Amino acid sequence: MTAVDDVQHMKWWGWGVDGVAFSHADKPHLKPFVVHAVDVDLDVEGAPALSLDQLDVPATRAPDELLTALRTAVGDEAVRTDDLDRVVHTYGKSVRDLLRIRANDLPRVPDAVVYPADEAQVRAVVDAALAADAVLIPFGGGSNISGSLQPEPAEQRPVLSLDLGRLDQLLDVDEDSGLARIQAGALGPSIERQLGARGWTLGHFPDSFTHSTLGGWIATRSSGMQSDKYGDIADITKGLRVVQPDGTLVVRAVPSTSTGPSVREMILGSEGRLGIITEATVQVHRVPEERVVLGYFFPSWEAGLAAMQAISASDATPSITRVSDARETQFSFATRKESSGISSYVSKGLMAFLAKRGWDLDQICLSFIGYEGGPKHVAAQKRAVRAIVRKHGGIVVGKGPGALYDQKKFDTPYIRDFLLDRGAAADVSETAAPWSQLLPLYTEVRTAADKAFAQIGVKGWIMCHLSHSYHSGACLYFTFAFRHDGVGPIGQYEVVKSAIQQALVDNNGTLSHHHGVGTEHSPWLAQDISEPGVAMISGVLAATDPGRNLNPGKIVR
Amino acid sequence: MTAVDDVQHMKWWGWGVDGVAFSHADKPHLKPFVVHAVDVDLDVEGAPALSLDQLDVPATRAPDELLTALRTAVGDEAVRTDDLDRVVHTYGKSVRDLLRIRANDLPRVPDAVVYPADEAQVRAVVDAALAADAVLIPFGGGSNISGSLQPEPAEQRPVLSLDLGRLDQLLDVDEDSGLARIQAGALGPSIERQLGARGWTLGHFPDSFTHSTLGGWIATRSSGMQSDKYGDIADITKGLRVVQPDGTLVVRAVPSTSTGPSVREMILGSEGRLGIITEATVQVHRVPEERVVLGYFFPSWEAGLAAMQAISASDATPSITRVSDARETQFSFATRKESSGISSYVSKGLMAFLAKRGWDLDQICLSFIGYEGGPKHVAAQKRAVRAIVRKHGGIVVGKGPGALYDQKKFDTPYIRDFLLDRGAAADVSETAAPWSQLLPLYTEVRTAADKAFAQIGVKGWIMCHLSHSYHSGACLYFTFAFRHDGVGPIGQYEVVKSAIQQALVDNNGTLSHHHGVGTEHSPWLAQDISEPGVAMISGVLAATDPGRNLNPGKIVR
Repeated sequence: MTAVDDVQHMKWWGWGVDGVAFSHADKPHLKPFVVHAVDVDLDVEGAPALSLDQLDVPATRAPDELLTALRTAVGDEAVRTDDLDRVVHTYGKSVRDLLRIRANDLPRVPDAVVYPADEAQVRAVVDAALAADAVLIPFGGGSNISGSLQPEPAEQRPVLSLDLGRLDQLLDVDEDSGLARIQAGALGPSIERQLGARGWTLGHFPDSFTHSTLGGWIATRSSGMQSDKYGDIADITKGLRVVQPDGTLVVRAVPSTSTGPSVREMILGSEGRLGIITEATVQVHRVPEERVVLGYFFPSWEAGLAAMQAISASDATPSITRVSDARETQFSFATRKESSGISSYVSKGLMAFLAKRGWDLDQICLSFIGYEGGPKHVAAQKRAVRAIVRKHGGIVVGKGPGALYDQKKFDTPYIRDFLLDRGAAADVSETAAPWSQLLPLYTEVRTAADKAFAQIGVKGWIMCHLSHSYHSGACLYFTFAFRHDGVGPIGQYEVVKSAIQQALVDNNGTLSHHHGVGTEHSPWLAQDISEPGVAMISGVLAATDPGRNLNPGKIVR
Repeated sequence: MTAVDDVQHMKWWGWGVDGVAFSHADKPHLKPFVVHAVDVDLDVEGAPALSLDQLDVPATRAPDELLTALRTAVGDEAVRTDDLDRVVHTYGKSVRDLLRIRANDLPRVPDAVVYPADEAQVRAVVDAALAADAVLIPFGGGSNISGSLQPEPAEQRPVLSLDLGRLDQLLDVDEDSGLARIQAGALGPSIERQLGARGWTLGHFPDSFTHSTLGGWIATRSSGMQSDKYGDIADITKGLRVVQPDGTLVVRAVPSTSTGPSVREMILGSEGRLGIITEATVQVHRVPEERVVLGYFFPSWEAGLAAMQAISASDATPSITRVSDARETQFSFATRKESSGISSYVSKGLMAFLAKRGWDLDQICLSFIGYEGGPKHVAAQKRAVRAIVRKHGGIVVGKGPGALYDQKKFDTPYIRDFLLDRGAAADVSETAAPWSQLLPLYTEVRTAADKAFAQIGVKGWIMCHLSHSYHSGACLYFTFAFRHDGVGPIGQYEVVKSAIQQALVDNNGTLSHHHGVGTEHSPWLAQDISEPGVAMISGVLAATDPGRNLNPGKIVR
């Protein structure tokens, strides 16, 4: 168990830890690209970070009896009411969250942050909270971007943030079964470190990896970069322990079961509304003998998608399938360091060669495909994929870009903050849809975004990549950005974000593939899963939490 | 849509269709085996089938207004109140069901059977039933063995069986996405015929395949023989349409989603309690270029299990992994026809060879492993598996037994009925557990069964096979039989079945891997998924069906 003061938090005004930030030094192509895309000058000095003193943090409303009960439950040092702790636990890290906190918009912050040390203490905290009719919001790494962490602005009851950061241990590895029991508050790197020391890997690497937890992944139905091989967190999670008002839910770690409507699949995606996840038993894999990510170029987005579809229908089973549209490819090219290996694959020589072959260089789509396993398996997979890539007009560009992608994959949110400091709001919307629907959906989303940009009168940019493949479809991950007006950026954001979300559900996509519902996507839930589906979710929430004490207002009102 | 009179039903007193039955002609090894196993003489004439006249079928209690409303909804010919139709729809096909019907034990039969022709008619039937406060029990192929189909004995309200048999069409194939929209009442062979005509396969082949439906598979979380490749029905099912009291639930066919607690996974396993499933969008695959099932021998059950575990942890991805314990292997050997290919692999020459290598011939475990895909893929898989099999002391015995297994795989229930006619009650219990738990669980189940046989003073037999492998564990499928006393066979059955089920949940197994809960397994539900889990299921049932009109009493009371 980790000490309270050792629980890591991201900085409250942005992504990641203090002292780590994106820099455009040595990236000469980025500045002209950003001017072109969103009309922002990178050489303008970034807005300085706020200081905590500048915020109007409302005083805690936690009654003394509740605080006393909590201190009895977890010890004095594990109940915090200072401004910093409360502000850190108020929001996640969506662009809306950052815009609000930078605008000193704090209508409701948790009244106390509680750091239980084990499941028994979680139980005691839940009991104390319910006895006082307080609201409990579980908090993992704080990386959520769907509005799942904020207290309801009008909440009159005491609000507690329950930080799981001290429950961060690998408890057990069942080596025969490839099953590991891990506490819910463990962060990605800690999980891989603890498993890796014993020769195992979870294989779950979402973009948020460095700042998100096992419990958070489960509560939001996370998906990671190698999910093509390892599965989404919904596939990976076998057993669960969840502290609920009326008892502790225990889901056995069985590989499959036929025990009625799946309780396991109710906890997945429950965003704190069905109790506090304290630990999970997850399937783990031996660290593979070989692991390689290769880069590929396709002459068009259509060709790239078709190749991914063909791979998914083949006998090949790569660990990563990813292809960027032409715009995201241009963005990738623009972020390359002059001194890095990436230069080689956008070398003049290669471009001249492709142009000669008839490629429209503005339409190049960069793809990464990953392979894991024994050497024979990896070699056979690479061969099988190469044949499919060639059939779709693509070429292999080698290991360099793949290695670079692998190193840089967790850095994107830092770029987002760097741009935000300079007046550009960037956010993401992701979806999944059947293969047949991907191209029409893509086109409609781009049209909707462009219309929204025009509506609010900004120069905007939207780009996309396919991030996961399944037998019947794939995840499309859109990133959009625009130079906001500095006055009503949240209103502008809402116009763009809403237009994109509406286009997703109007074009046979789901409202989110792996970011969850929260408050951000809740308005589209009924359009996605139909009103009866919403009623079923409401039914299980009401049965488990009749007093609406568990993270109320998220997923459904 | 199929005409009412063309909806196929199994015979009401046993498995399958009239005129098809198991025969022990040309199987000289079976008679001594059955005497040895359960002390039953196969040459004793089987009990003759009952005639319908011998049953005391209670008169229909459906009020005229309800019948009129139903006739308006679906047409006169699609509302049946005759004894045959009502008896056919009273029970599933568990040994308990057969014992009851043969004992003229019919405390409550459906008051009418309704055959809607499409979803609109299902809607009209649901509305009419709710208006009359009637009970609705959906009926697919009638193969259920968990007690999911029977009306509650004390039910005072009118009970309707809603037969989905006319909704049996493949509606659409999205060839780009590998997704097929199929009506819920389609039987296995019809689905494969309709898909096969277009070059596709669903790949779902449960033992009940010939007499079970897509909707039934979904409602019970079915699993099939090739699920190692194609996934359990829970993996296969992407989209759903479900007629519920307050509207029609529509789950989009997306490959993966993050929209809160999974509504799709609530319908899976819902056994009629959350509405009438009318259609599903399922992932389908191109009929593979090659498909081969190879037979293997292992020197012991431990070796066989260890090999399956090693395969699951390797890069190999066979379509079938199956290994029988020594007893089930002996049963398989005993059912071989003198004239069939199976003789060759239990030839005296082979046995002498194995004995010379030090094998205990009584401990031989027969295994089948299936391969599908392109020729290169199949060859590579076979090679990889052979290396693992050899490492665990096993040998390849070739294609013959695999081909035979493939032909005979749907015949087991006929043998069950053949034995029942001669005084032996046979039934099954299946579970899933982590790899590390399989051997201890197996041992405990055998001990529990033997103790139960002793308790009721019968000669009993229990045998087992591993039927599906997953990364973290496998399904163990137990078959047990005993010569019942003819007086209180259900009481005897309950002693044995209960002992086995209790051993499953006491030894880290789940109460059922793919047969569902119904009434048969309901007593163990809380021991498996914990009381809070049961409360969550009850919550969603109550929210969707507050009047308990939808198949009440199943899964939870």
